[in-house]
Amino acid sequence: MTESSDRTADALATMRRIFGAELSLAAHDGEPESAGDLHRILFEHAFADSWSRTHLDDRSRSLITVAMLAVIGAERELRNHVAGAMGLGVTADELVDLFIHVGVYAGVAQAHQAWSTVSDVIEKVGARRAATKPAP
Amino acid sequence: MTESSDRTADALATMRRIFGAELSLAAHDGEPESAGDLHRILFEHAFADSWSRTHLDDRSRSLITVAMLAVIGAERELRNHVAGAMGLGVTADELVDLFIHVGVYAGVAQAHQAWSTVSDVIEKVGARRAATKPAP
Amino acid sequence: MTESSDRTADALATMRRIFGAELSLAAHDGEPESAGDLHRILFEHAFADSWSRTHLDDRSRSLITVAMLAVIGAERELRNHVAGAMGLGVTADELVDLFIHVGVYAGVAQAHQAWSTVSDVIEKVGARRAATKPAP
Amino acid sequence: MTESSDRTADALATMRRIFGAELSLAAHDGEPESAGDLHRILFEHAFADSWSRTHLDDRSRSLITVAMLAVIGAERELRNHVAGAMGLGVTADELVDLFIHVGVYAGVAQAHQAWSTVSDVIEKVGARRAATKPAP
Amino acid sequence: MTESSDRTADALATMRRIFGAELSLAAHDGEPESAGDLHRILFEHAFADSWSRTHLDDRSRSLITVAMLAVIGAERELRNHVAGAMGLGVTADELVDLFIHVGVYAGVAQAHQAWSTVSDVIEKVGARRAATKPAP
Amino acid sequence: MTESSDRTADALATMRRIFGAELSLAAHDGEPESAGDLHRILFEHAFADSWSRTHLDDRSRSLITVAMLAVIGAERELRNHVAGAMGLGVTADELVDLFIHVGVYAGVAQAHQAWSTVSDVIEKVGARRAATKPAP
Repeated sequence: MTESSDRTADALATMRRIFGAELSLAAHDGEPESAGDLHRILFEHAFADSWSRTHLDDRSRSLITVAMLAVIGAERELRNHVAGAMGLGVTADELVDLFIHVGVYAGVAQAHQAWSTVSDVIEKVGARRAATKPAP
Repeated sequence: MTESSDRTADALATMRRIFGAELSLAAHDGEPESAGDLHRILFEHAFADSWSRTHLDDRSRSLITVAMLAVIGAERELRNHVAGAMGLGVTADELVDLFIHVGVYAGVAQAHQAWSTVSDVIEKVGARRAATKPAP
Repeated sequence: MTESSDRTADALATMRRIFGAELSLAAHDGEPESAGDLHRILFEHAFADSWSRTHLDDRSRSLITVAMLAVIGAERELRNHVAGAMGLGVTADELVDLFIHVGVYAGVAQAHQAWSTVSDVIEKVGARRAATKPAP
Repeated sequence: MTESSDRTADALATMRRIFGAELSLAAHDGEPESAGDLHRILFEHAFADSWSRTHLDDRSRSLITVAMLAVIGAERELRNHVAGAMGLGVTADELVDLFIHVGVYAGVAQAHQAWSTVSDVIEKVGARRAATKPAP
Repeated sequence: MTESSDRTADALATMRRIFGAELSLAAHDGEPESAGDLHRILFEHAFADSWSRTHLDDRSRSLITVAMLAVIGAERELRNHVAGAMGLGVTADELVDLFIHVGVYAGVAQAHQAWSTVSDVIEKVGARRAATKPAP
Repeated sequence: MTESSDRTADALATMRRIFGAELSLAAHDGEPESAGDLHRILFEHAFADSWSRTHLDDRSRSLITVAMLAVIGAERELRNHVAGAMGLGVTADELVDLFIHVGVYAGVAQAHQAWSTVSDVIEKVGARRAATKPAP
């Protein structure tokens, strides 16, 4: 189990560095205890195996993630990763270009649905960003 | 920009002719201004590039659209296009046959889910149609 | 129509035997009458053609169903079949292992979304099961 | 087994009427004998349950089938059904319109790949059709 | 890197135990050296994170894998895992039932294509198995 | 038709600028003449509507394209766009990171299959690049 703890620590450190977020990996209330393994394994695969790598920069990996989640149609994770991308400096205009490109390769319905899923996230993060900008 | 305006006008005219509907392509409240491009580009591709073509008749293209959206699982657009198909004269019985065929090629779960998504649309449009039929 | 009635009876008997459940195949309120055909055809294909077969045991077919529905993302049917699997004796821990495996072959986002969709079903069925266990 | 034979006969008659084709449903050489069930069950579901229905006409069902197979990417069946559609009188120009529409809803790459898969079928069937046309 | 070596060793041991197979994880000729990471990471996620788990038995996990790969359409891996399933004692008749069930939930075209992809594997492994059976 | 010619010219210019490639949009030998429309419409949507946009840089749009095509499984276009990405300066190591990330969100089988599809393209473009590098 020591090995797994190292992997978990690596994954959590990567998530913190890139997205500035913490995460609890314990089984939620009502879940079987072994569900903690499910949360941990999926998370470690994403963050210890992939997001921690350095050939691709964080921003590129974030854009790729958003595009793939739009194609797959995983709406909740899409919302999280759009917020994450904006935290890495991706602008609303870049996201517009990205979702137009999703339309080209996954069709207009898929792109439209994905855009509808995230447009309020873009607005909220954009508004927060504008509010916290120091006066010039 | 003139070119794009012609394309937009073509697309809007096609939509009006086939579905009797208007559409605003401006960015919605809270969206970045460039989101207007996204709405316009997806819409023009659908209506200026494809729905405007004349080798396939409107009704066939409408049936194909409903089937593809059911396979893809794009629920909101599926509802819109089922209403559109009925506006073109497609009957509830034809839609039943269509969704049975979706079941054959996309599986029973996908077909069931798609049917559940649209059955109230079929009911509403059908009721409206019955109400507006002139007395014999 | 006699033939179809035999097939319907076979399908219903199989469903009753495996899942202990009954099902009405009539068109729902507001649906066109022919929608009864859609319900019946999808149901017979599943239960008369496949669930009734005997080379594969019920439990294996149930696990396979849950995995495929998670990959396809058919959420309502996924919930039904997770409850069904637990009725056949599949444990919450086995389902955790199953969804971890879904993650390997369908990606972490798809697995996470599928797990979120069913975790309250697992909890409810698990609680009911614990409550009805006879005292030792 | 009598019931199944009726269903099989129905399905074969429907296939013959619509596509003018015969089909052997026996297990192929080297396949386990039970593979005959697999061939029969898939075929009966398609032809006894769906293609035999009469609310939707053969031609519309054929166009829908081609569109769904292009979205799904089932290449061999796509080729068969494009040939079948042309046998029902669908023209090469109608298929061009259909695959442009596939592009709108399933993306340009999927449409391009599907079109490449069938363009030689369209050419061959078209050439055969031209050759057998009676002199005016 | 020690941690990763443990994980790699675990994954290889699991593969050997279940499928009796060895695997080289080095980059293939002509691949960039870092491709070794890709092979290793995908393999470890499958075998150290999932196939090594014990709530679900090997046979059930193998059946689930075959079903998911048929739905996804990953043909080469499907062939490998059908051979693997037969190595664990799954019979040709059980696989027939499995692919009929794939047809119910993923459609007849997907099931047919998947079955065609594996039927020669089933024949070959079946023939080998018959040949090595000791005389009674 | 003038409008379309402008769109076509824009699309071709964009393709030439980004990928240094020319393309014929005429119907291929044996295709119906209207197939030229299909080639032109799909191409214009990709290159006049999306690749020409400037909020996202070429390199990011290229990485996103490769990732989406890997998820979708469009193999021929995937090979073209991997070569295109390398023409824009994307390295083999960056592509390794990208396909590891595809594995996380689309599963190990899909990622493996996509990687196998492109690894010889990466090798060839890499070798050509090394050969044409001026001596230091």
